[in-house]
Amino acid sequence: MKTYWQYNFPGNIYFGENSLDELKNIYATMNNQKTLVITDNGIKNSGILDVLKEKLDTFEIPYEIFDQAKPEPTVKDVEEVLNVYRNKDIDILIGLGGGSCIDLAKMIAFMLKTDHPISYFYENKIDFKAATIIAIPTTAGTGSEVTGVAVVNDEERNLKVGISSNYLKPNFAILDPQLTVGMPPRVTACSGIDALVHAVEAFTSKNYNEFEKDYQADFRGSTVLSNLFAEEAIKLITSSLVAAFKDGKDIKARSNMLLGSLLAGLAFSNSGTSISHAMAYAIGGRVHSPHGEITGLMLPYTVKYNYQSNLEKFNKLYDMCLPNDNSTSVEEKENKLFEYFIQLLNSINLPTKLSEIKVQETDLKPMTLETLGIARLMNMNPRKATEETLYEVFKEAY
Amino acid sequence: MKTYWQYNFPGNIYFGENSLDELKNIYATMNNQKTLVITDNGIKNSGILDVLKEKLDTFEIPYEIFDQAKPEPTVKDVEEVLNVYRNKDIDILIGLGGGSCIDLAKMIAFMLKTDHPISYFYENKIDFKAATIIAIPTTAGTGSEVTGVAVVNDEERNLKVGISSNYLKPNFAILDPQLTVGMPPRVTACSGIDALVHAVEAFTSKNYNEFEKDYQADFRGSTVLSNLFAEEAIKLITSSLVAAFKDGKDIKARSNMLLGSLLAGLAFSNSGTSISHAMAYAIGGRVHSPHGEITGLMLPYTVKYNYQSNLEKFNKLYDMCLPNDNSTSVEEKENKLFEYFIQLLNSINLPTKLSEIKVQETDLKPMTLETLGIARLMNMNPRKATEETLYEVFKEAY
Repeated sequence: MKTYWQYNFPGNIYFGENSLDELKNIYATMNNQKTLVITDNGIKNSGILDVLKEKLDTFEIPYEIFDQAKPEPTVKDVEEVLNVYRNKDIDILIGLGGGSCIDLAKMIAFMLKTDHPISYFYENKIDFKAATIIAIPTTAGTGSEVTGVAVVNDEERNLKVGISSNYLKPNFAILDPQLTVGMPPRVTACSGIDALVHAVEAFTSKNYNEFEKDYQADFRGSTVLSNLFAEEAIKLITSSLVAAFKDGKDIKARSNMLLGSLLAGLAFSNSGTSISHAMAYAIGGRVHSPHGEITGLMLPYTVKYNYQSNLEKFNKLYDMCLPNDNSTSVEEKENKLFEYFIQLLNSINLPTKLSEIKVQETDLKPMTLETLGIARLMNMNPRKATEETLYEVFKEAY
Repeated sequence: MKTYWQYNFPGNIYFGENSLDELKNIYATMNNQKTLVITDNGIKNSGILDVLKEKLDTFEIPYEIFDQAKPEPTVKDVEEVLNVYRNKDIDILIGLGGGSCIDLAKMIAFMLKTDHPISYFYENKIDFKAATIIAIPTTAGTGSEVTGVAVVNDEERNLKVGISSNYLKPNFAILDPQLTVGMPPRVTACSGIDALVHAVEAFTSKNYNEFEKDYQADFRGSTVLSNLFAEEAIKLITSSLVAAFKDGKDIKARSNMLLGSLLAGLAFSNSGTSISHAMAYAIGGRVHSPHGEITGLMLPYTVKYNYQSNLEKFNKLYDMCLPNDNSTSVEEKENKLFEYFIQLLNSINLPTKLSEIKVQETDLKPMTLETLGIARLMNMNPRKATEETLYEVFKEAY
C-alpha cells in the first residue's frame, strides 16, 4: 500500500479579464525572449491572434508565428514546424488556441531540445528541460494549460500517443474568459463536457493508497488536493455549461467554465482519468467525433457502472449535481445521476448513444479488448472491469 | 481595479508516512547531488536527523551537515554557514526541522549564488535561481515548506526582515506526520495556532480585485484558489489542534495538522496575511514570545475587529468553527466566534492577554504606530485601521 501521496504543481496561473497584460511582467523575468507563437487559422481569423500580437508589439517582444496548427497534431505536423524553426534560436513557445495548439507548442518546446525523433518518447521519459511554455487557451476543456500531457497522432503507426512529463507543464498559463467568448456552441459543448469528465474521473478515480508501495506513474490516484480541485470544478461546470452553450456572451458562465476546466486540469493531471477516457481511445480510432463528444457520451454509462464501487464519492457527486433531489436509496441516486447526465448531454445537443456517432455494433467486441489494454487509465478505475462487464457497458451505450 | 488574479505554485509535495523514501526518486532527477543538510540540535538529539541520514546513505547521496541552526536565524548565523560552505560546490539544500531550519536553508540556497550581502535583498528582489531546496518540516505551523519567504533577524539594524521571492519556494516539500510526533505540547500549540492564523487571514484578506490594476506584490489578496486551500486548512486545524496538543502520538491529528499547515501555506503564500501578523511584528520586538503565541493571542481580537467588514467570509468562518451553533444575528455570531477562539487558546494553554506575555501598557501606543507602518500586511486587512481603531484592538487585547 502506498502510504503517501505526491502532487506536482504547474508554474504560474493568471486568470481573468486582461490577464494578457501580464505578459509584460512574465517577459521581464526572462533573458532570451525569442518567441514562437503556435496557433491555427480559426484563431487568426477570429481576431484573437491580433490581440496577442498587439500585446507582444507593445511590450517589444520579438516573435515569429506559426498559424497553421491542425486539430489533433500528427508526427508530420511536428516535424514540419521543427524543420522551419529548429535553428532559429527560439526559447519560448506560446500556445494560443484549443488543446491542439497548446499540445503542439509543448511538443515543439521539448523537441527543440533533442535530436531524437518524437517516437523515441513514446517509450522513454523526457529527462531534460523543455523551452519555456506559455499556454493561452481559447477553449474551456482540455486543461492542457496546466497538464504535462501532449497528444500526438502517429499516422504511420496508426497510434494516438499521449506524451507525458512534468517538463511539459506550461511555465505560465494565461486564462482570459474574453478569449473564449467567440467559441461556437458545438465547441463549447464538446470541450465543456470533456472538462466535466476530467473532473468526475479525477474525483472518483482510485485513491492513491490503493496502489502498491512502489507504484510510479504520472497518474497516481486521487488525493486530498486533487479532490479539492475536482469538487470545485464539478460545481462550476455543472452550474455553467448549459448557460455558456446557450449564450456564448454570458461572461460569467464563460469565466466559470474556464475556471472549472483549469481546476479539472489541476485535478486529473495528478490523479488521472479512467474508464471513459480509455473507452474513448478505442472509439476514437473508429469514428470522426471530437474527443469530448465521445468522453461525454460515455459519462452517464460509466458513472452508473462505477457508482456502487465507491459510495462515498459517488453520493457526493450526486449531491453536487442534484443538490435539491431527495432520493434516499442507492439505486434511486444512481439512476437519477444517470438521467441527469443524459439530460445534460441533451441540453447541449450532444449524442447519448454510440450508434448516433456511427460506431458499428460489430466493433463493440474489439473495442472492449482494446479498452482493457489501456492499463494506464483502466488501473485508475474504481471498479474492476472484465471483458464481460465492459462489453455490457459498451452495449448499454450503443 | 485588478480584473485578474495570479497564483504561483511551489514545486512538488510528498505527503504521508514514509514519504522520505521519495528522496531516491528526487535525487535521480538531479545531476549535482552535493547536499548540505541544515538542522538543529533538537532534531539531532531526537533521532530525526539519523532517520534522514540513513535514507541518504542508503540512496548513496553525498552530503554534509550543519546541525547548529538557532531559532530565528540572524544575519551572523547566515554568514557563519556561508563562510564554511561557500566553496564546497553545494547545489542542494535540505532544511530539516521547524521554520527556522527551513528558512536558514532557503537563505543559504540563494546566498550561495550571489556575492551581495544579505542586507542587499531587504530592498532588492532576488532575480536569479537559488540552489535546489528540499524542505522537510518537523513542526506543523509555518508552512515554510511551500512559501517563498525566509525571515532573518538583523541584530545590528534591530530589524526582523522577511525576504520574499518565488525563487525561495522549495522545489520539493516532504511531509511525514511521523516526524512531528515528538513535538512537545507547547511547540504543537504555538506552531499549530500560527497555522490557523495563516489560514484565517488568507481566507479573510482583501479580495484580489480590491487592488489597483497595477498592484504588484508577492501577496495579492484572496482568490478562488487561496480560498479553497484556506477553507480546508481551517476545517483540518480546528478539528485536530486540541487532539494533537493533548496526545502527541495521535497520528491522525498530527497528520491533519501537518496537512492543514501545508494548505494554509499554499493559501497565504499567495493571498497574504494581515492585521494579526502586522501586530505580531510590533509585539515581537518587545517580548520573547514565540511568533505563534503572539499571532494566536491576537486572533480573537482581530477577527472581532474585522467581522462586519466582510460578512460573507466571516459568517463562513463562524460556520466552519461552530458548525452546530445556531446564532442568527451578526453580533451573536461575532461574539460566539470570539469566545470560540479564546476557548481554543485556553485549551492549548496559550495566553489570551498581552499583559500575560509581559507587554507594557505604555508600549501600546508605539506598537500601534509601528503596526500601521507595516503596509505590506495592513494593506491586506479587510477593514481599514486607523490609529484610534487599532489602538482600541491593542487595548482590548491587553
